[in-house]
Amino acid sequence: MTFTTAHMSISLDGFVAGPDQSRDDPLGVGGMQLHKWHFDPVEHEADIAMRDSLLRPRGAYVMGRNMFGPIRGEWRERDWRGWWGDDPPYHCDTFVLTHHPRESVEMQGGTTFHFVTDGIEAAMDQATAAAGERDISIAGGASTVRQYLSAGLLDELNLQINPILLGAGERPLDGLDSLPALELERTLASPAVTHVRYRVVKQ
Amino acid sequence: MTFTTAHMSISLDGFVAGPDQSRDDPLGVGGMQLHKWHFDPVEHEADIAMRDSLLRPRGAYVMGRNMFGPIRGEWRERDWRGWWGDDPPYHCDTFVLTHHPRESVEMQGGTTFHFVTDGIEAAMDQATAAAGERDISIAGGASTVRQYLSAGLLDELNLQINPILLGAGERPLDGLDSLPALELERTLASPAVTHVRYRVVKQ
Repeated sequence: MTFTTAHMSISLDGFVAGPDQSRDDPLGVGGMQLHKWHFDPVEHEADIAMRDSLLRPRGAYVMGRNMFGPIRGEWRERDWRGWWGDDPPYHCDTFVLTHHPRESVEMQGGTTFHFVTDGIEAAMDQATAAAGERDISIAGGASTVRQYLSAGLLDELNLQINPILLGAGERPLDGLDSLPALELERTLASPAVTHVRYRVVKQ
Repeated sequence: MTFTTAHMSISLDGFVAGPDQSRDDPLGVGGMQLHKWHFDPVEHEADIAMRDSLLRPRGAYVMGRNMFGPIRGEWRERDWRGWWGDDPPYHCDTFVLTHHPRESVEMQGGTTFHFVTDGIEAAMDQATAAAGERDISIAGGASTVRQYLSAGLLDELNLQINPILLGAGERPLDGLDSLPALELERTLASPAVTHVRYRVVKQ
Protein backbone atom coordinates (compact mmCIF):
# COMPACT_ATOMS: atom_id res chain seq x y z
CA MET A 1 0.00 0.00 0.00
CA THR A 2 1.15 3.51 -0.76
CA PHE A 3 1.73 5.48 2.41
CA THR A 4 -0.53 8.53 2.69
CA THR A 5 0.18 11.44 4.96
CA ALA A 6 -1.09 14.95 5.63
CA HIS A 7 0.77 17.92 7.12
CA MET A 8 -1.19 20.81 8.51
CA SER A 9 -0.27 23.96 10.40
CA ILE A 10 -3.14 24.40 12.80
CA SER A 11 -4.23 26.91 15.41
CA LEU A 12 -4.61 25.82 19.03
CA ASP A 13 -8.37 26.01 18.52
CA GLY A 14 -8.22 23.68 15.53
CA PHE A 15 -8.34 25.90 12.45
CA VAL A 16 -6.05 25.44 9.43
CA ALA A 17 -7.42 28.53 7.67
CA GLY A 18 -9.22 31.63 8.82
CA PRO A 19 -12.62 32.72 7.53
CA ASP A 20 -13.27 34.53 4.22
CA GLN A 21 -10.72 32.97 1.91
CA SER A 22 -10.13 35.21 -1.10
CA ARG A 23 -7.55 35.92 -3.76
CA ASP A 24 -5.92 38.39 -1.38
CA ASP A 25 -6.23 36.04 1.59
CA PRO A 26 -5.59 32.51 0.30
CA LEU A 27 -5.60 31.12 3.84
CA GLY A 28 -8.46 33.26 5.07
CA VAL A 29 -8.22 36.10 7.57
CA GLY A 30 -5.36 35.38 9.96
CA GLY A 31 -4.46 32.09 8.33
CA MET A 32 -1.00 33.05 7.12
CA GLN A 33 0.33 33.39 10.65
CA LEU A 34 -0.11 29.62 11.09
CA HIS A 35 2.80 29.18 8.65
CA LYS A 36 5.27 31.59 10.19
CA TRP A 37 7.17 28.69 11.78
CA HIS A 38 8.51 27.52 8.40
CA PHE A 39 9.23 30.87 6.81
CA ASP A 40 12.78 32.16 6.91
CA PRO A 41 14.59 32.48 9.17
CA VAL A 42 13.90 28.99 10.48
CA GLU A 43 16.46 28.50 13.21
CA HIS A 44 15.35 25.82 15.65
CA GLU A 45 16.43 22.28 14.83
CA ALA A 46 12.91 20.89 15.21
CA ASP A 47 11.48 23.47 12.80
CA ILE A 48 14.29 22.85 10.31
CA ALA A 49 13.72 19.10 10.47
CA MET A 50 9.98 19.50 9.94
CA ARG A 51 10.36 22.02 7.13
CA ASP A 52 12.74 19.65 5.36
CA SER A 53 10.35 16.78 5.91
CA LEU A 54 7.53 18.90 4.50
CA LEU A 55 9.54 19.71 1.38
CA ARG A 56 10.92 16.23 0.74
CA PRO A 57 10.07 14.62 -2.60
CA ARG A 58 6.66 12.96 -2.78
CA GLY A 59 5.10 10.56 -5.21
CA ALA A 60 1.94 12.61 -5.62
CA TYR A 61 -0.21 15.23 -3.94
CA VAL A 62 -3.97 15.52 -3.62
CA MET A 63 -5.62 18.81 -2.80
CA GLY A 64 -9.06 20.34 -2.69
CA ARG A 65 -10.13 22.92 -5.17
CA ASN A 66 -10.22 25.70 -2.60
CA MET A 67 -6.58 25.05 -1.89
CA PHE A 68 -5.82 25.30 -5.59
CA GLY A 69 -7.52 28.64 -5.98
CA PRO A 70 -10.28 31.08 -5.11
CA ILE A 71 -12.39 30.28 -8.19
CA ARG A 72 -15.70 28.48 -7.56
CA GLY A 73 -17.99 26.73 -10.06
CA GLU A 74 -16.95 26.47 -13.72
CA TRP A 75 -13.36 27.21 -14.73
CA ARG A 76 -14.11 30.55 -16.28
CA GLU A 77 -10.65 31.85 -15.55
CA ARG A 78 -8.62 29.48 -17.66
CA ASP A 79 -5.43 31.19 -16.72
CA TRP A 80 -5.66 30.34 -13.01
CA ARG A 81 -2.74 28.00 -12.40
CA GLY A 82 -2.62 27.89 -8.60
CA TRP A 83 -1.32 30.26 -5.97
CA TRP A 84 2.30 29.31 -6.36
CA GLY A 85 3.57 30.93 -9.57
CA ASP A 86 5.21 29.08 -12.48
CA ASP A 87 7.16 26.63 -10.32
CA PRO A 88 4.89 25.28 -7.55
CA PRO A 89 6.51 23.54 -4.57
CA TYR A 90 5.04 20.10 -5.39
CA HIS A 91 7.36 18.84 -8.18
CA CYS A 92 5.17 15.83 -9.00
CA ASP A 93 1.67 14.93 -10.15
CA THR A 94 -0.84 16.88 -8.07
CA PHE A 95 -4.49 15.90 -8.18
CA VAL A 96 -7.07 18.62 -7.61
CA LEU A 97 -10.56 17.57 -6.50
CA THR A 98 -13.25 19.47 -8.38
CA HIS A 99 -16.74 19.03 -9.79
CA HIS A 100 -15.71 20.76 -13.01
CA PRO A 101 -13.54 19.01 -15.62
CA ARG A 102 -10.44 20.68 -16.96
CA GLU A 103 -7.41 19.56 -18.88
CA SER A 104 -4.20 18.91 -16.96
CA VAL A 105 -1.85 21.87 -16.52
CA GLU A 106 1.88 21.23 -16.71
CA MET A 107 3.97 23.66 -14.69
CA GLN A 108 7.70 24.18 -14.35
CA GLY A 109 9.74 22.03 -11.97
CA GLY A 110 7.80 18.80 -12.46
CA THR A 111 4.41 19.79 -11.05
CA THR A 112 1.42 18.82 -13.18
CA PHE A 113 -2.06 19.65 -11.93
CA HIS A 114 -4.68 17.05 -12.82
CA PHE A 115 -8.36 17.74 -12.21
CA VAL A 116 -10.37 14.83 -10.80
CA THR A 117 -14.15 15.01 -10.95
CA ASP A 118 -15.16 11.58 -9.66
CA GLY A 119 -14.34 11.82 -5.99
CA ILE A 120 -11.67 11.25 -3.38
CA GLU A 121 -11.23 7.53 -4.00
CA ALA A 122 -10.69 8.05 -7.72
CA ALA A 123 -8.16 10.76 -6.91
CA MET A 124 -6.40 8.39 -4.51
CA ASP A 125 -6.29 5.67 -7.16
CA GLN A 126 -4.73 8.05 -9.66
CA ALA A 127 -2.29 9.39 -7.07
CA THR A 128 -1.30 5.85 -6.11
CA ALA A 129 -0.61 4.98 -9.75
CA ALA A 130 1.51 8.12 -10.12
CA ALA A 131 3.36 7.80 -6.82
CA GLY A 132 5.32 4.63 -7.45
CA GLU A 133 7.34 3.80 -4.34
CA ARG A 134 6.99 7.28 -2.88
CA ASP A 135 4.31 8.45 -0.52
CA ILE A 136 1.23 10.53 -1.20
CA SER A 137 0.58 13.76 0.62
CA ILE A 138 -2.91 15.12 1.12
CA ALA A 139 -1.98 18.78 0.83
CA GLY A 140 -5.26 20.18 2.18
CA GLY A 141 -7.37 22.06 2.80
CA ALA A 142 -9.51 21.28 5.80
CA SER A 143 -12.37 19.66 3.91
CA THR A 144 -10.12 17.41 1.85
CA VAL A 145 -8.17 16.16 4.86
CA ARG A 146 -11.44 15.60 6.71
CA GLN A 147 -12.80 13.51 3.86
CA TYR A 148 -9.70 11.32 3.58
CA LEU A 149 -9.53 10.86 7.34
CA SER A 150 -13.23 9.94 7.49
CA ALA A 151 -12.79 7.44 4.68
CA GLY A 152 -9.90 5.67 6.39
CA LEU A 153 -7.54 6.61 3.57
CA LEU A 154 -4.97 8.45 5.66
CA ASP A 155 -2.08 6.64 7.36
CA GLU A 156 -0.50 9.55 9.18
CA LEU A 157 -1.46 13.01 10.39
CA ASN A 158 1.24 15.62 11.03
CA LEU A 159 0.18 18.75 12.85
CA GLN A 160 2.08 21.88 13.69
CA ILE A 161 0.10 23.26 16.60
CA ASN A 162 0.53 27.02 16.76
CA PRO A 163 0.13 29.06 19.97
CA ILE A 164 -2.58 31.03 18.19
CA LEU A 165 -6.33 31.29 18.66
CA LEU A 166 -8.16 32.12 15.41
CA GLY A 167 -11.73 31.90 16.66
CA ALA A 168 -13.19 31.06 13.24
CA GLY A 169 -12.29 29.40 9.98
CA GLU A 170 -11.85 25.90 8.62
CA ARG A 171 -11.44 22.92 10.94
CA PRO A 172 -10.25 19.62 9.46
CA LEU A 173 -11.09 17.62 12.59
CA ASP A 174 -14.72 18.80 12.86
CA GLY A 175 -17.60 16.97 11.24
CA LEU A 176 -15.78 13.68 10.70
CA ASP A 177 -18.13 10.89 9.60
CA SER A 178 -16.17 8.52 11.80
CA LEU A 179 -13.69 9.12 14.60
CA PRO A 180 -10.52 7.19 13.84
CA ALA A 181 -8.26 6.02 16.65
CA LEU A 182 -4.87 7.73 16.65
CA GLU A 183 -1.50 6.79 18.07
CA LEU A 184 0.84 9.56 19.11
CA GLU A 185 4.09 8.69 17.35
CA ARG A 186 6.26 11.70 18.02
CA THR A 187 6.24 15.15 19.58
CA LEU A 188 8.92 17.70 18.71
CA ALA A 189 9.19 20.94 20.63
CA SER A 190 10.32 24.26 19.24
CA PRO A 191 9.76 27.72 20.68
CA ALA A 192 7.46 28.53 17.77
CA VAL A 193 5.18 25.56 17.44
CA THR A 194 4.49 22.04 18.70
CA HIS A 195 5.08 19.33 16.09
CA VAL A 196 2.99 16.20 16.60
CA ARG A 197 2.73 13.13 14.42
CA TYR A 198 -0.11 10.64 14.72
CA ARG A 199 -0.54 7.24 13.13
CA VAL A 200 -4.11 6.54 12.11
CA VAL A 201 -5.04 3.12 13.51
CA LYS A 202 -6.66 1.02 10.80
CA GLN A 203 -9.79 -0.73 12.07
CA MET B 1 -0.58 39.77 41.47
CA THR B 2 -1.56 36.23 42.28
CA PHE B 3 -0.56 33.86 39.52
CA THR B 4 -3.53 32.11 37.95
CA THR B 5 -3.25 28.96 35.91
CA ALA B 6 -5.48 26.31 34.37
CA HIS B 7 -4.68 22.69 33.56
CA MET B 8 -6.85 20.82 31.14
CA SER B 9 -6.67 17.41 29.54
CA ILE B 10 -8.04 17.99 26.08
CA SER B 11 -8.82 15.95 22.99
CA LEU B 12 -7.03 16.68 19.73
CA ASP B 13 -10.28 18.22 18.49
CA GLY B 14 -10.47 20.55 21.47
CA PHE B 15 -12.91 18.96 23.91
CA VAL B 16 -12.27 18.69 27.66
CA ALA B 17 -15.48 16.74 28.28
CA GLY B 18 -17.72 14.61 26.14
CA PRO B 19 -21.44 15.26 25.62
CA ASP B 20 -24.21 14.29 28.05
CA GLN B 21 -22.58 14.85 31.42
CA SER B 22 -24.45 12.92 34.12
CA ARG B 23 -23.93 11.46 37.56
CA ASP B 24 -22.65 8.27 35.92
CA ASP B 25 -20.55 10.18 33.40
CA PRO B 26 -19.07 13.21 35.19
CA LEU B 27 -16.91 14.06 32.20
CA GLY B 28 -19.53 13.23 29.60
CA VAL B 29 -19.47 10.33 27.19
CA GLY B 30 -15.88 9.44 26.42
CA GLY B 31 -14.45 12.20 28.61
CA MET B 32 -12.70 9.95 31.12
CA GLN B 33 -10.21 8.68 28.53
CA LEU B 34 -8.72 12.19 28.38
CA HIS B 35 -7.35 11.57 31.87
CA LYS B 36 -5.79 8.16 31.33
CA TRP B 37 -2.32 9.73 31.10
CA HIS B 38 -2.29 10.57 34.82
CA PHE B 39 -3.89 7.44 36.19
CA ASP B 40 -1.61 4.76 37.54
CA PRO B 41 0.64 3.40 36.29
CA VAL B 42 2.22 6.67 35.22
CA GLU B 43 5.64 5.68 33.98
CA HIS B 44 7.03 8.27 31.61
CA GLU B 45 9.06 11.05 33.21
CA ALA B 46 7.09 13.81 31.46
CA ASP B 47 3.79 12.40 32.68
CA ILE B 48 5.14 11.97 36.20
CA ALA B 49 6.40 15.55 36.22
CA MET B 50 3.08 16.91 34.98
CA ARG B 51 1.02 14.79 37.37
CA ASP B 52 3.14 16.04 40.25
CA SER B 53 2.78 19.60 39.01
CA LEU B 54 -0.99 19.11 38.79
CA LEU B 55 -1.15 17.84 42.36
CA ARG B 56 1.16 20.43 43.92
CA PRO B 57 -0.27 22.61 46.68
CA ARG B 58 -2.29 25.61 45.51
CA GLY B 59 -3.55 28.68 47.24
CA ALA B 60 -7.10 28.32 45.99
CA TYR B 61 -9.18 26.73 43.24
CA VAL B 62 -12.10 28.09 41.26
CA MET B 63 -14.48 25.78 39.43
CA GLY B 64 -17.80 25.91 37.66
CA ARG B 65 -20.86 24.34 39.09
CA ASN B 66 -21.00 21.62 36.44
CA MET B 67 -17.55 20.54 37.52
CA PHE B 68 -18.73 20.40 41.13
CA GLY B 69 -21.68 18.20 40.35
CA PRO B 70 -24.51 17.13 38.06
CA ILE B 71 -27.20 19.10 39.94
CA ARG B 72 -28.73 22.07 38.11
CA GLY B 73 -30.84 24.92 39.51
CA GLU B 74 -31.54 25.10 43.25
CA TRP B 75 -29.50 23.00 45.68
CA ARG B 76 -32.24 20.50 46.34
CA GLU B 77 -29.80 17.72 47.09
CA ARG B 78 -28.10 19.16 50.13
CA ASP B 79 -25.93 16.12 50.54
CA TRP B 80 -24.09 16.64 47.24
CA ARG B 81 -20.52 17.39 48.24
CA GLY B 82 -18.71 17.02 44.92
CA TRP B 83 -17.56 14.03 42.91
CA TRP B 84 -14.47 13.32 44.99
CA GLY B 85 -15.62 11.68 48.25
CA ASP B 86 -14.83 12.95 51.73
CA ASP B 87 -11.26 14.04 50.95
CA PRO B 88 -11.21 15.93 47.64
CA PRO B 89 -7.87 16.45 45.88
CA TYR B 90 -7.86 20.23 46.34
CA HIS B 91 -6.73 20.67 49.97
CA CYS B 92 -7.50 24.39 50.07
CA ASP B 93 -10.35 26.86 49.64
CA THR B 94 -12.24 26.00 46.47
CA PHE B 95 -14.71 28.49 45.05
CA VAL B 96 -17.67 27.12 43.09
CA LEU B 97 -19.43 29.46 40.65
CA THR B 98 -23.21 29.14 40.93
CA HIS B 99 -26.36 31.20 40.67
CA HIS B 100 -27.76 29.59 43.81
CA PRO B 101 -26.45 30.48 47.27
CA ARG B 102 -25.35 27.77 49.65
CA GLU B 103 -23.34 27.66 52.85
CA SER B 104 -19.71 26.62 52.65
CA VAL B 105 -18.96 22.92 52.98
CA GLU B 106 -15.86 21.87 54.87
CA MET B 107 -14.38 18.58 53.73
CA GLN B 108 -11.55 16.43 55.03
CA GLY B 109 -7.97 17.18 54.05
CA GLY B 110 -8.28 20.95 53.99
CA THR B 111 -10.73 21.42 51.13
CA THR B 112 -13.59 23.82 51.81
CA PHE B 113 -16.12 24.48 49.07
CA HIS B 114 -17.41 28.05 48.97
CA PHE B 115 -20.31 28.99 46.70
CA VAL B 116 -19.99 32.28 44.86
CA THR B 117 -23.09 33.80 43.28
CA ASP B 118 -21.80 37.15 42.07
CA GLY B 119 -19.64 36.16 39.14
CA ILE B 120 -16.14 35.22 38.07
CA GLU B 121 -14.45 38.43 39.24
CA ALA B 122 -15.91 38.13 42.71
CA ALA B 123 -14.75 34.52 42.84
CA MET B 124 -11.28 35.60 41.73
CA ASP B 125 -11.17 38.28 44.43
CA GLN B 126 -12.10 35.74 47.09
CA ALA B 127 -9.63 33.20 45.73
CA THR B 128 -6.89 35.82 45.70
CA ALA B 129 -7.58 36.69 49.33
CA ALA B 130 -7.47 33.00 50.26
CA ALA B 131 -4.41 32.11 48.19
CA GLY B 132 -1.76 34.16 49.95
CA GLU B 133 1.56 33.65 48.18
CA ARG B 134 0.42 30.56 46.35
CA ASP B 135 -1.15 30.42 42.93
CA ILE B 136 -4.77 29.98 41.94
CA SER B 137 -5.90 27.18 39.70
CA ILE B 138 -9.00 27.45 37.55
CA ALA B 139 -10.00 23.82 37.83
CA GLY B 140 -12.61 23.82 35.04
CA GLY B 141 -14.81 23.03 33.35
CA ALA B 142 -14.78 24.32 29.80
CA SER B 143 -17.14 27.23 30.37
CA THR B 144 -15.31 28.49 33.47
CA VAL B 145 -11.90 28.42 31.80
CA ARG B 146 -13.39 30.14 28.75
CA GLN B 147 -14.80 32.93 30.91
CA TYR B 148 -11.55 33.55 32.78
CA LEU B 149 -9.54 33.46 29.55
CA SER B 150 -11.95 35.89 27.87
CA ALA B 151 -11.78 38.24 30.85
CA GLY B 152 -7.97 38.36 30.79
CA LEU B 153 -7.79 36.80 34.26
CA LEU B 154 -5.65 33.80 33.34
CA ASP B 155 -1.84 33.97 33.31
CA GLU B 156 -1.07 30.47 32.07
CA LEU B 157 -2.80 27.69 30.21
CA ASN B 158 -1.56 24.11 30.54
CA LEU B 159 -2.94 21.59 28.12
CA GLN B 160 -2.46 17.87 27.88
CA ILE B 161 -3.31 17.18 24.26
CA ASN B 162 -4.55 13.62 23.90
CA PRO B 163 -4.33 11.63 20.65
CA ILE B 164 -8.09 11.24 20.82
CA LEU B 165 -10.94 12.59 18.71
CA LEU B 166 -14.17 13.00 20.68
CA GLY B 167 -16.30 14.64 18.00
CA ALA B 168 -18.62 16.38 20.48
CA GLY B 169 -18.65 17.83 23.98
CA GLU B 170 -17.36 20.92 25.74
CA ARG B 171 -14.70 23.14 24.18
CA PRO B 172 -12.99 25.73 26.40
CA LEU B 173 -11.38 27.55 23.47
CA ASP B 174 -14.60 28.05 21.49
CA GLY B 175 -16.77 31.10 21.83
CA LEU B 176 -14.17 33.33 23.48
CA ASP B 177 -15.26 36.96 23.71
CA SER B 178 -11.71 38.00 22.89
CA LEU B 179 -8.79 36.05 21.44
CA PRO B 180 -5.80 36.45 23.74
CA ALA B 181 -2.28 36.21 22.38
CA LEU B 182 -0.38 33.20 23.68
CA GLU B 183 3.30 32.41 24.03
CA LEU B 184 4.39 28.80 23.86
CA GLU B 185 6.52 28.34 26.95
CA ARG B 186 7.20 24.63 26.99
CA THR B 187 6.36 21.40 25.23
CA LEU B 188 6.94 18.04 26.93
CA ALA B 189 6.59 14.82 24.98
CA SER B 190 5.40 11.53 26.35
CA PRO B 191 4.09 8.51 24.43
CA ALA B 192 0.64 9.13 25.93
CA VAL B 193 0.01 12.81 25.53
CA THR B 194 1.59 16.12 24.48
CA HIS B 195 2.08 18.56 27.36
CA VAL B 196 2.04 22.22 26.32
CA ARG B 197 2.21 25.30 28.47
CA TYR B 198 1.21 28.75 27.22
CA ARG B 199 1.68 32.13 28.81
CA VAL B 200 -1.28 34.44 28.20
CA VAL B 201 0.10 37.75 26.93
CA LYS B 202 -1.45 40.63 28.82
CA GLN B 203 -2.60 43.40 26.51
